[in-house]
Amino acid sequence: MAVSTKPARGMRDFLPADVRRRSHVIDVVAGVFQSYGFEPLETPSVENIETLTGKYGEEGDRLIFKILKRGEDGKTGDADLALRYDLTVPLARVVAEHRGTLPKFFKRYQVQPVWRADRPQKGRFREFYQCDVDATGSTSMTVEAELLAAGADVLSRLGFADFTVRLNHRQLLTGVLDTAGVPAALHGTALIALDKADKVGRDAVVSDMVARGIVGAAARALMTLLFDEAAAAADNGARLELLGRYVAGHEAGAAAVAQLREILALAGGTSAGPHLVIDPTLARGLGYYTGAIFEIAVPDLAGSLGGGGRYDDLVGMFRGQRVPACGLSLGLERILVVMAERGMFPASVQRPPADVLVANFDADAVADALALAAELRRGHGGTTLAVELYPDVDKLGKQFKYAAERGIPFVAVAGSEERQAGQVTLKALASGTQATVARTVAAEHIVTSMRTSRG
Amino acid sequence: MAVSTKPARGMRDFLPADVRRRSHVIDVVAGVFQSYGFEPLETPSVENIETLTGKYGEEGDRLIFKILKRGEDGKTGDADLALRYDLTVPLARVVAEHRGTLPKFFKRYQVQPVWRADRPQKGRFREFYQCDVDATGSTSMTVEAELLAAGADVLSRLGFADFTVRLNHRQLLTGVLDTAGVPAALHGTALIALDKADKVGRDAVVSDMVARGIVGAAARALMTLLFDEAAAAADNGARLELLGRYVAGHEAGAAAVAQLREILALAGGTSAGPHLVIDPTLARGLGYYTGAIFEIAVPDLAGSLGGGGRYDDLVGMFRGQRVPACGLSLGLERILVVMAERGMFPASVQRPPADVLVANFDADAVADALALAAELRRGHGGTTLAVELYPDVDKLGKQFKYAAERGIPFVAVAGSEERQAGQVTLKALASGTQATVARTVAAEHIVTSMRTSRG
Repeated sequence: MAVSTKPARGMRDFLPADVRRRSHVIDVVAGVFQSYGFEPLETPSVENIETLTGKYGEEGDRLIFKILKRGEDGKTGDADLALRYDLTVPLARVVAEHRGTLPKFFKRYQVQPVWRADRPQKGRFREFYQCDVDATGSTSMTVEAELLAAGADVLSRLGFADFTVRLNHRQLLTGVLDTAGVPAALHGTALIALDKADKVGRDAVVSDMVARGIVGAAARALMTLLFDEAAAAADNGARLELLGRYVAGHEAGAAAVAQLREILALAGGTSAGPHLVIDPTLARGLGYYTGAIFEIAVPDLAGSLGGGGRYDDLVGMFRGQRVPACGLSLGLERILVVMAERGMFPASVQRPPADVLVANFDADAVADALALAAELRRGHGGTTLAVELYPDVDKLGKQFKYAAERGIPFVAVAGSEERQAGQVTLKALASGTQATVARTVAAEHIVTSMRTSRG
Repeated sequence: MAVSTKPARGMRDFLPADVRRRSHVIDVVAGVFQSYGFEPLETPSVENIETLTGKYGEEGDRLIFKILKRGEDGKTGDADLALRYDLTVPLARVVAEHRGTLPKFFKRYQVQPVWRADRPQKGRFREFYQCDVDATGSTSMTVEAELLAAGADVLSRLGFADFTVRLNHRQLLTGVLDTAGVPAALHGTALIALDKADKVGRDAVVSDMVARGIVGAAARALMTLLFDEAAAAADNGARLELLGRYVAGHEAGAAAVAQLREILALAGGTSAGPHLVIDPTLARGLGYYTGAIFEIAVPDLAGSLGGGGRYDDLVGMFRGQRVPACGLSLGLERILVVMAERGMFPASVQRPPADVLVANFDADAVADALALAAELRRGHGGTTLAVELYPDVDKLGKQFKYAAERGIPFVAVAGSEERQAGQVTLKALASGTQATVARTVAAEHIVTSMRTSRG
């Protein structure tokens, strides 16, 4: 056959074991976000092209998947729709659209896939999930503090202890660049160069900045300040002190330092506190940030587990009125990669497909096997059972083997004698023990055995 | 501003109340499917175009959303990818791809969106969720019986009592058409005409069949058999008796009647039993069905809540080897429409965004308000609390009003006196009562009050 059975390039199928691992993480994420009063939102996978373009920078625009107009029958034509590229721009659209009915402080979480036409490479996919949490309507630094605390709670509850929350501020970067003598028109390009420091090293950043038109002396002075001097500071307070002195004459820069101090004071007492690191080299790629920016990292992963920041002007791009906003986005795929590498999934995530397999070996009693399965499914004492019926009439030995291979702990067998006596034989595959019990108590027997073997 | 804030045509935003209703239904669906031993599967939203084309018939092919190739910078170009059109073809692809590692009987459920470039109209969307459950690897009619039982369990657990499960068989339709003298080459077009009977009435079906090249006498004879005579039969058994006599000389048709009898016998004792109706007019639009077909309907909805059938040849379209398969697809959107119209959602679905609002009215004690929120979040006795912090420092009255508007039942206030005494004042908004308690027992106080007011 000519048709490939592989998923499209950069896309993945998630088999049951994969889905269970993903659901485990998503459940923890949603549970923590809900505990902070965030509510669920879902937006369409497909947006009008105009909604997305111009929001993600030039590189971002190029990575947007575009969809042909309805009615284009062939494979060639005009596009008017596009696949969701992140969860922030759709949120801004929703907040602008429903401004009149949403609460003043709209706090939402959203766990959905996004699509980017990136060149696929190890660990980078064209369809991947983001777990976003955003609060709109307030300029208070309590928002930043609670987002950082919620992110730290998620990671702690998943079992991470060694993560770092890097914290910086777009206006501090502006202040530093202005003070170092980088012309305002070159700030954007300077931040793109700086954003690569993790990957390429500081010498390459200087060359890149010079190539982008920044005077060499200014670029080197920046590196000395941001890397050597800031890194040498004893702690976050000393680092802010140093940076504050550098931008003392710059109004927005000084205000940014004050905001970072406030965030440190507020978030310091939360679960995020021990993980916070003021890092003036953090730039964040996206263009829409206006205030504090942050990124969560672990030592054994290049790149970040998540990041975010304040973007007070994005909603206003849809409607004139400014709506302050701040958010954190966790990358589901990267969290899963690290958890898999470190073996962090609890055993309960890999549960068998069913608790019981009902054997089906008597062609005259198939309806009874179906009925037995339904009876067992009802469970006992509020505990229901997952029950699989072996679909084909076949030899018992084959069915026991099937249950063992699938990890199903119990097999229920009702032969003609048992049926006449209103009984069923239950075999526990792990121990090999079996018991013939009244059908009315069969579910109870299994539920009790499962509790015993787990306890 | 020029940019529209509406979602794209035929697409929808789901605000928190919408998501909660959707999650309620999805949780019931997943819970029931799991209880039958079905496992979760997820496939990519985007497939290679070749994977999808030629599987859904001519009309289906036209409704597939096509995606521009990566690197097409403008809005015009060639498409090589497409949006998932249903969940069945991707399953067939996955089964073909993972044949060697999947269990012999692969039973999966899948709840994901699909996209169709339909003309949007009331209740019809371009992005909508399907809840599919399929079993591959067995030709046994226990598969049909369990799918029908699982579908009936889902609807019953959601609160539906008055649904009908229409049951027919593609080979019975073939037998009837052959016997009525419709040439084999016209069977496909005849079924398309028959499929519209619900909407257009039987006279229009006859005209349509004639327009499609079927002899008028044959078309009228079909209508008499399928509608008048079959409908007049006293019960399902009598109806199968009648149809069996009509196709007695047609091998596949007679075998189909035997299979329907077996399904009735097996499913009759399950939760689906009371809802089953043999309906020889049921055609089902999709081309890939090969055996039993079924559709679930309620009186107050045109169209169906779900449907499915056996498709033993679809996996073979990806790989030469035949893998029998049978599935049921429930339409989430239609289930939600009927549940909303009938007021079937339990009150618990519309819970408030948080259990407690922590007031924030003292600029010198914001960090303490954050700490109080974190303490309350821990809850008591295994019950955690969802706690929202009012983000801005503002007047208390405004914050009480905000909590009341949002339906948040408790407000926690810690003024300077309370802070000094290690206390907090908790106000229950519904009763207006308030109590000042030690902070160490504040969460317990709220948890207990919530239990009392609910019980």
